[in-house]
Amino acid sequence: MKHLLSTEDLSLTDAVRILDTAEEMAAVGEREVKKLPALRGRTVVNLFFEDSTRTRISFEAAAKRLSADVINFAAKGSSVSKGESLKDTAQTLEAMSADAVVIRHWASGAPARLAASGWIDAAVINAGDGTHEHPTQALLDAFTLRRHVCALAGRSSTGEDLRGLRIVIVGDVLHSRVARSNLWLLNTLGAEVTLVAPPTLFPVGIQAWPCKVSFDLDEALADNPHAIMMLRVQGERMNAAFFPSAREYSRTWGFDDDRLAALEATAGKDTIIMHPGPMNRGLEISSAAADSPRSTILAQVRNGVSVRMAALYLLLSGEDTATTTPAQEATV
Amino acid sequence: MKHLLSTEDLSLTDAVRILDTAEEMAAVGEREVKKLPALRGRTVVNLFFEDSTRTRISFEAAAKRLSADVINFAAKGSSVSKGESLKDTAQTLEAMSADAVVIRHWASGAPARLAASGWIDAAVINAGDGTHEHPTQALLDAFTLRRHVCALAGRSSTGEDLRGLRIVIVGDVLHSRVARSNLWLLNTLGAEVTLVAPPTLFPVGIQAWPCKVSFDLDEALADNPHAIMMLRVQGERMNAAFFPSAREYSRTWGFDDDRLAALEATAGKDTIIMHPGPMNRGLEISSAAADSPRSTILAQVRNGVSVRMAALYLLLSGEDTATTTPAQEATV
Amino acid sequence: MKHLLSTEDLSLTDAVRILDTAEEMAAVGEREVKKLPALRGRTVVNLFFEDSTRTRISFEAAAKRLSADVINFAAKGSSVSKGESLKDTAQTLEAMSADAVVIRHWASGAPARLAASGWIDAAVINAGDGTHEHPTQALLDAFTLRRHVCALAGRSSTGEDLRGLRIVIVGDVLHSRVARSNLWLLNTLGAEVTLVAPPTLFPVGIQAWPCKVSFDLDEALADNPHAIMMLRVQGERMNAAFFPSAREYSRTWGFDDDRLAALEATAGKDTIIMHPGPMNRGLEISSAAADSPRSTILAQVRNGVSVRMAALYLLLSGEDTATTTPAQEATV
Repeated sequence: MKHLLSTEDLSLTDAVRILDTAEEMAAVGEREVKKLPALRGRTVVNLFFEDSTRTRISFEAAAKRLSADVINFAAKGSSVSKGESLKDTAQTLEAMSADAVVIRHWASGAPARLAASGWIDAAVINAGDGTHEHPTQALLDAFTLRRHVCALAGRSSTGEDLRGLRIVIVGDVLHSRVARSNLWLLNTLGAEVTLVAPPTLFPVGIQAWPCKVSFDLDEALADNPHAIMMLRVQGERMNAAFFPSAREYSRTWGFDDDRLAALEATAGKDTIIMHPGPMNRGLEISSAAADSPRSTILAQVRNGVSVRMAALYLLLSGEDTATTTPAQEATV
Repeated sequence: MKHLLSTEDLSLTDAVRILDTAEEMAAVGEREVKKLPALRGRTVVNLFFEDSTRTRISFEAAAKRLSADVINFAAKGSSVSKGESLKDTAQTLEAMSADAVVIRHWASGAPARLAASGWIDAAVINAGDGTHEHPTQALLDAFTLRRHVCALAGRSSTGEDLRGLRIVIVGDVLHSRVARSNLWLLNTLGAEVTLVAPPTLFPVGIQAWPCKVSFDLDEALADNPHAIMMLRVQGERMNAAFFPSAREYSRTWGFDDDRLAALEATAGKDTIIMHPGPMNRGLEISSAAADSPRSTILAQVRNGVSVRMAALYLLLSGEDTATTTPAQEATV
Repeated sequence: MKHLLSTEDLSLTDAVRILDTAEEMAAVGEREVKKLPALRGRTVVNLFFEDSTRTRISFEAAAKRLSADVINFAAKGSSVSKGESLKDTAQTLEAMSADAVVIRHWASGAPARLAASGWIDAAVINAGDGTHEHPTQALLDAFTLRRHVCALAGRSSTGEDLRGLRIVIVGDVLHSRVARSNLWLLNTLGAEVTLVAPPTLFPVGIQAWPCKVSFDLDEALADNPHAIMMLRVQGERMNAAFFPSAREYSRTWGFDDDRLAALEATAGKDTIIMHPGPMNRGLEISSAAADSPRSTILAQVRNGVSVRMAALYLLLSGEDTATTTPAQEATV
């Protein structure tokens, strides 16, 4: 694995390897000194063409916990905003010895372009591109799901995939890179996915996607899924013609208190409620749902750091990772 | 001590303990390698809902000198600006393993809310909230005062309080968290405080505060205080109806050249002039006063790093701090 | 050497010393762990009154590779933007124990003012001031030139100056601090400089500068120079009355494909094409020229980190640098 660009082309082996490495990283987070020396002397650049404080600081925390140096490069106010090309920006970072470039870009495909271009040798990690993919989000979601299910079954999650799980993803599928990355990864890991959205918020060609499609959230919930992932509503889209009103959205596609009560009453008590954050409480998810014991929203954030540590570690620490585990290196 | 939220509820014991620890930290600043390993592997998040470069970099320098990792989170441009609640922001930071959250907020009480909420386990340090408190500013002021007085008396400052000192605080008391934090702390440490302000810039209920109140700066100065603290005039308030004109403010409540001359001529030569910075030279303080040998303005900045190191150290290094001193840990 | 403010007053000895130290630093960049412990416990503040992401992250990478702590201070949104004086800002940084202040300022002379003022003890490095100087840019350009010429001649570059080299600098000389810093340094190092610009973009008094002056790029190129440095066109100046149109500029003073072809056909095959970045591709330089094997643009960026490491090292590691080399200290 040289880059982490999408989950669509991530093999089952690599996906499970990242999840397993993330388990080791999570153990580091429980030590007294939460640092590994693994990436000392390496430089990770956060190259953000869109604001995303949460994703940026999650990668920053992950890199620092591996002892890497972190340089934050926000496109705003930089030569990028004066019209510098992605190529020139990238080559500049490469020339400054960036070992990994974590890129968030408003244009779908920008990270893949960067990786395929030959402009840089650095590892490229896609931290969200347009409406395309957000692979570390999907990996942290899968990690969260795997831990939940394996804990219920009383077995170690290491080495496991997600065969047999039923996942419902709800919201603005049309614009959601989180939905896409989750869909591909969950398929690779063997889970069954149902996408639920208002009719105007499905992409053209949805029939060809490897999932069930529904306009009816309650019907999907009645199927007793292992997890429900609520997608964030992007405020800037709310007034578009294709978008339902906030009131309609919340009542029809939001996970509100009534649906929480219904879930408690009828569904398997093990269904979890997921959300990538930041939430619009009262819109796509009610506060009671977000804060209920079923919610794994904070676990997702926590797991995000472990998964990003795993990605950075696997991409940067070289080929010998198959034989040396981070735990073996952990003599700080 | 789990959090540092205000000086109003800081005990004498804890206050003196912070000041004493800050003395040890100041000694670190004089070593060749100005770093302690005390907080290695710990993460300090600067969560700033208001811009304050000075306070932010003072905490950043303090945390780095203790070998902590620092993550800066400016609310501007983040999901906070898209309406995320304080609760969700805080829990996100917690889930990313923040050990301490240094919070600056425009709303009085936000840090206390954060600490009392149960949302997070991290230590909360108030770096200024609305018109409420700014406890590390008061602690660095007390540290500066204590050092000055003890140096004059030729004795070590360790263990000392401020009994018998007379301090005059001058300016926009109504809106000043610095005035409030200083008043409470100086009282706890045994000093006598006189607040001087234009009549419209005292809060309702000032009679109940444990201090003298005056509208006449020259009268207060004639009393030969140990220190005069000038408060910053907030530019955005200058045009409000309750605010004197700049000219009137400067002449009546500013520490100008005439008052400096009067102080030199009549008052004890040991009176010091303090200001929390940044200064409006020519408004609340003249350049000659700011740069005079009586001014401790730069010492205050320097002491700010030591005091913040002390606060971070005491809050994060656990219960055994009573027996291990930072100096004993200082084998880097 | 206490500060690095300009190349105009940099001695030949100091210039060569910085270049030689940069050679040692470049070797660090090739090690597996690209870090030296040389500046551990030291604090480098990037004090930027103008945005310049590239220069800022180059200094940040350099400082971190020397194990210094880095604090970024952007004037925007800070007390500086509320009118704080340079003096007060500087003294604040000093009081927080800044060991070096890397300053970028829109006002020519601000770094020299800071260094000469006695306000601070910290080393001051000019990272670009107004239309005055940008010394580390000139040093990295000289380093790049020296390496290129010495590699061709099959000899070590250590200890070498640039005697006998012919350099052509092309563009908006009037406003370019890069042109000025290069001119002085190249003269000190013994190179011959020709400045080429539109008549309206030469400063008054250009006759007194130690260089040839030309309005004709092709004529200058015919002279078979060792290097051509293209200056960046500042977008904000393009509509000024004294500025040619983009079309005219590109055709007459840009390094376009025709000139690249002419260079390939007639000039010595060893002429290199330099640019300080960020480029306006298609304006002052064509894409083919920027990406040709003659281009050293990325080497310049890479060398920038080495040169800035050298400057920080020499300014901060004290007088014993004459006897201890960084390589000797490199037991991390």
